[in-house]
Amino acid sequence: MSRLHAPRDLTSLLAPRSVAVIGASDRSRWSQVAFANLSPPGFSGTLHLVNRRGAVAHGRPCAVSCAQIGAPVDVGVVMVPTDAVAAAIEDLAAAGGRHAVILSSGFAELGESGRLEQDRIAAIAREAGVSVLGPNSLGLVNYLDGVALWTAPYRKPQRPGTIAVVSHSGQVAYHLANVARHQGVALSHLVTTGNEMDLDATDFVAHLIADDRVRAIALYLETVRRPERFVQVARQAGAAGMPLVVLKIGASEASARTAQAHTGALVGDDRAFDAMCEQYGVVRVHALEDLVITADLIARTGVLRPGGLGLMSNSGGICGIAADAAAKAGLPLPQLSPATVGALGEVLPDYATCQNPLDITGAAAADRALFEHTLRVLAADRAFGAVVCFGDLPASRAESDESLLAGLMHMGRAAQAADIPVLVMNCVQRDVTPEGQEIAAEYRLPLVAAGLDRGLAALGRAFRWSQFQRGGQRPREAARVGSVQVPLPCSEHTVLQLLRTHGVPVVPAVLAGSAQEAVDAAQRLGGAVAVKICSPDIAHKSEIGGVALDVRGPDAVREAYARVLAGAPPQARVEGVLVAPMRPRGLELIVGVSRDPTWGPMLVVGLGGIWVETLQDVALRQLPVDAQDVAEMLQGLKAAALFRGSRGAQPVDIAALARTIARIGDLALALGPRLEALEINPLRVEGNGCEALDALLVIGAQPPEEEPR
Amino acid sequence: MSRLHAPRDLTSLLAPRSVAVIGASDRSRWSQVAFANLSPPGFSGTLHLVNRRGAVAHGRPCAVSCAQIGAPVDVGVVMVPTDAVAAAIEDLAAAGGRHAVILSSGFAELGESGRLEQDRIAAIAREAGVSVLGPNSLGLVNYLDGVALWTAPYRKPQRPGTIAVVSHSGQVAYHLANVARHQGVALSHLVTTGNEMDLDATDFVAHLIADDRVRAIALYLETVRRPERFVQVARQAGAAGMPLVVLKIGASEASARTAQAHTGALVGDDRAFDAMCEQYGVVRVHALEDLVITADLIARTGVLRPGGLGLMSNSGGICGIAADAAAKAGLPLPQLSPATVGALGEVLPDYATCQNPLDITGAAAADRALFEHTLRVLAADRAFGAVVCFGDLPASRAESDESLLAGLMHMGRAAQAADIPVLVMNCVQRDVTPEGQEIAAEYRLPLVAAGLDRGLAALGRAFRWSQFQRGGQRPREAARVGSVQVPLPCSEHTVLQLLRTHGVPVVPAVLAGSAQEAVDAAQRLGGAVAVKICSPDIAHKSEIGGVALDVRGPDAVREAYARVLAGAPPQARVEGVLVAPMRPRGLELIVGVSRDPTWGPMLVVGLGGIWVETLQDVALRQLPVDAQDVAEMLQGLKAAALFRGSRGAQPVDIAALARTIARIGDLALALGPRLEALEINPLRVEGNGCEALDALLVIGAQPPEEEPR
Repeated sequence: MSRLHAPRDLTSLLAPRSVAVIGASDRSRWSQVAFANLSPPGFSGTLHLVNRRGAVAHGRPCAVSCAQIGAPVDVGVVMVPTDAVAAAIEDLAAAGGRHAVILSSGFAELGESGRLEQDRIAAIAREAGVSVLGPNSLGLVNYLDGVALWTAPYRKPQRPGTIAVVSHSGQVAYHLANVARHQGVALSHLVTTGNEMDLDATDFVAHLIADDRVRAIALYLETVRRPERFVQVARQAGAAGMPLVVLKIGASEASARTAQAHTGALVGDDRAFDAMCEQYGVVRVHALEDLVITADLIARTGVLRPGGLGLMSNSGGICGIAADAAAKAGLPLPQLSPATVGALGEVLPDYATCQNPLDITGAAAADRALFEHTLRVLAADRAFGAVVCFGDLPASRAESDESLLAGLMHMGRAAQAADIPVLVMNCVQRDVTPEGQEIAAEYRLPLVAAGLDRGLAALGRAFRWSQFQRGGQRPREAARVGSVQVPLPCSEHTVLQLLRTHGVPVVPAVLAGSAQEAVDAAQRLGGAVAVKICSPDIAHKSEIGGVALDVRGPDAVREAYARVLAGAPPQARVEGVLVAPMRPRGLELIVGVSRDPTWGPMLVVGLGGIWVETLQDVALRQLPVDAQDVAEMLQGLKAAALFRGSRGAQPVDIAALARTIARIGDLALALGPRLEALEINPLRVEGNGCEALDALLVIGAQPPEEEPR
Repeated sequence: MSRLHAPRDLTSLLAPRSVAVIGASDRSRWSQVAFANLSPPGFSGTLHLVNRRGAVAHGRPCAVSCAQIGAPVDVGVVMVPTDAVAAAIEDLAAAGGRHAVILSSGFAELGESGRLEQDRIAAIAREAGVSVLGPNSLGLVNYLDGVALWTAPYRKPQRPGTIAVVSHSGQVAYHLANVARHQGVALSHLVTTGNEMDLDATDFVAHLIADDRVRAIALYLETVRRPERFVQVARQAGAAGMPLVVLKIGASEASARTAQAHTGALVGDDRAFDAMCEQYGVVRVHALEDLVITADLIARTGVLRPGGLGLMSNSGGICGIAADAAAKAGLPLPQLSPATVGALGEVLPDYATCQNPLDITGAAAADRALFEHTLRVLAADRAFGAVVCFGDLPASRAESDESLLAGLMHMGRAAQAADIPVLVMNCVQRDVTPEGQEIAAEYRLPLVAAGLDRGLAALGRAFRWSQFQRGGQRPREAARVGSVQVPLPCSEHTVLQLLRTHGVPVVPAVLAGSAQEAVDAAQRLGGAVAVKICSPDIAHKSEIGGVALDVRGPDAVREAYARVLAGAPPQARVEGVLVAPMRPRGLELIVGVSRDPTWGPMLVVGLGGIWVETLQDVALRQLPVDAQDVAEMLQGLKAAALFRGSRGAQPVDIAALARTIARIGDLALALGPRLEALEINPLRVEGNGCEALDALLVIGAQPPEEEPR
């Protein structure tokens, strides 16, 4: 772990004993609200007001500077005009202030000149040892300790929250807080990081992972500023069992992008972030509601034991809709065990069918205790990791009736008694009213108010996260390749040799420097051959007519030799032609390593040949990987069914194939930071063998400025 | 249109002048609520109470029978015990009653004996000319005319509703009504059809299409009882411009099913219903919330003009999330026209970037009229079919402030002035409170309270529905094939000949009755050949070793001849072997027709060979189809990119290919109702030609009882 990534101590930022509002003024609504938020009974620390003109704000005298306060200041909340921010930071630093929350905007978000001023202030703050949240931030709320460095009215939740929200955008944070309020989810923290001049979202995530009052972290990202740091905190969250749920924008921008090499195009889009999330156990969502709901749900279920989901309702229709939604969410619905069927038979009417999902029928209308009896039976079935019962929380007692409330009470009781999570899910999403909240609390109801659709989708994520967590952080086999040098640029012949040297089977292609050498090579190889121009300067041979396939006999080889060389550009260095045996049809993969601008070298494995662009059936992973990683990637492809052997083909030895592909990944890393792309397309796979038929290596002119890992 | 499908007159069921509650009793909660619902001021017609013991209920004397009432009864609401239902219907019929709503349960939903009793009552009702809703129904509500044949308390909406809900399940209808209430969507009708002994959901849909107060129909289905009738009402809805939005369960049940033939497996699942919806312009959704929200949204937008979506927010974060959600929903986000950019430049601050989505920046906080100015400019851009502005409706005026309300007012004004739909969308889903409803009404706010995620998904459906509606109902080219007879069972040779006769190019395979004939055929064909056993009794040749590929030279052909015949089961009739030229690699499709148990013969077109099961890249359509239909199916495949010619392959002549495939569909229909499957796999496609390489025909032992069309 480099010093760059040492954790920042944010304790006195998130729970300061003294705060200075810098730029306090009666005329500023921000100042008014911040003052109210930082006054008792909400805030128990010391509040100072600073205004460079002195004067009075909010009925209290202001200091003209932080220096004038004469007492330590943990946090300065800066709301001065853009051009006064630098001076305010200098003043805060001079007074020994430790942290600044810069609410002022007008910096990098406006373009280059704003960025320069932002960088200048960052340098001042760094020099003075002041850590900065913002600028262009809306501040933060620490609900647990009653600290609201926040310029909108805030409501302290009725019970201590467990869900921390960290958001690049203040507006988005506002909406996330609304979702939480509407859904009865209590937050622990709400942090908006704005332009991230200094502290970024990962700093807060790292801090919150260590706060044992926090049960899940919900993260809204517009970019990933420090990818290596993101990976680090994701690993920390995994190790701590802390769910990290992320909504990140950019999925659609990227889809418009074009890139030249296939691997580049495949890696350089939103799928890279998807792959990173999968690789490091980060839960990714795509809607604001899902961010809050999923964090809350996983915080409550924790790591689920292995098993499927039990579903129960008193409506056959809801059972059907839930079964479909569960399938869509990837939730397995195992059959009930014979013991469970027997036990249910004792309590349910004869006409009820004991299956999963379980419709306990209209009989529950007459006997509300049926909810409890059946839920207890379901929760005892070892086939399940969790059980969901559908039951709607009313907005008020008046909206409900005794009988429905009794049903909820019975559900709450069964959930309390169970040793796996039993959730009570509204059939449709609705807001939780304060009175509804009281009812839920009274019955200790494990409520998911988000409705069946979002609720089961979130539970599907909880199942996948649990699976990742149960798997633990496996020690990865170390790569066995040191640094490798290659002559540059590199022809196909050289790349194939390089691969062979590193244990990757390659087609026995022969480099021929003359027509006669080509004829001799074809005869030695026997059968039909491919004849391809070989030049370090020509990446796309087909496009210049540089490839002849299915060539048979000396005359044809001679003709092909002349033909494939004819289209070479005059400036290209030509080593000769490669003569390679034609291979029959088989399963063709693409195996590539491409340097993603954010995540560094990523391995891509997928269906090769013409299928790459068309079907985009690929798996991605950040390097390094070992054979087990690759085996998982292969098994995750849609094309995985083909590995079992189809229409008479031999089944593929996936372990052996994975070892070979892992070697390709190791080799790519050994080629160093200048590697842009190493692509094998196709890697022909048959039974327990594979063979690289074509390969391409692209090395950049100079290494990137900073190594991504 | 057959007599079976003549529309049923439901006017006096949905708006009766006189209703009899049959089984009225003070002890029955159903009776109490129904009585309250059918009393003034809600219901303006005549209410009769019937109880076979006479007596008094709800403070009024009961008749002992309908016959005793002595006045016409439009609808009898039957809530007597299961075993008294038959007598109640007889009594109602004798009294001249026209419709029965049977709330009683205990019929087909409980199994076979219940089904028999249900059938008996259906016969009684049919004989007497009484139409029946139910049994096991919760009744219906006609909000527009104040009729609630409904056993739960109902609330009349504040404004006349336009969205009709028809649901198989009463409980699901209850949840749908809740979604509508929470989202501020006013319903026109709520009909629960229960066991559909007589009237089914399609009868109500047909009636509601003709009611010009209804703007959209939301349908919850557990099964499709009369597929041909479903198609008929879907066509009627399309012709009337009435959005028909459907939630149907069963997606997951089917995924567990296995079927033998590929085509069968592909058709016989939920995708068939998807394909039907697409084919007939029915909008399919998968969540209860989406059913109501989508129906409401399309009811308000109507058929959108061609063009993309304009998006606007005062938050960059929301713009980013919305862009991703729009991409996921298939909503195009065109660039702004230069005129629009110019006009926006006049009103927006310099630092704002004029693009789509448009972030009008925090400047809107100071000047709320900016919402109106920018929205008016966006709505005038011809590139857009609709514009969405994000703005959150508060729960109350107290929760909001003057400035936010002013923003909503300006949005409402711009929407009123626009000649395309301008929608104001909550960023996150929340319930609409009565006070929120008032605010929205005051500002004439075109509100979508469902939030960005569900709102844009619904708008995506509105765009696709509009595209279908704009396309109109194209006259389909008639098939040119009469009835075709084939000898049964049918060998590959016979099927290939049949295809050739009907204009489908087939591989020039030669049937050889001896090894010498096979050798001669191979020599005439030249090059490598395939040798395949030919028997009407062997469908899966590879599995018995009945196929030899890439056979070259007389000796190899002789050997192959003997080998492929060796594995034939003793009882199989063997016609000989087919000798066919080997074809080089190319694009291989599967083209199949399979009889779906619900929808009849469906055409399947997709990637063939080993890719069928693996990638399931297929399009389905109910027959008949013409070449234009097939062309649309082909263009809809993921593999469509391959038709443009890939890696040096010639582009495919899609029109010619579509004509050939349409002929295969015509031929399948001409083979009559006993056709189970006609499958060509692969149909090899190259440039402007195609060729069937293998084919299979399965004809059933006897025609199905009822023809599906």
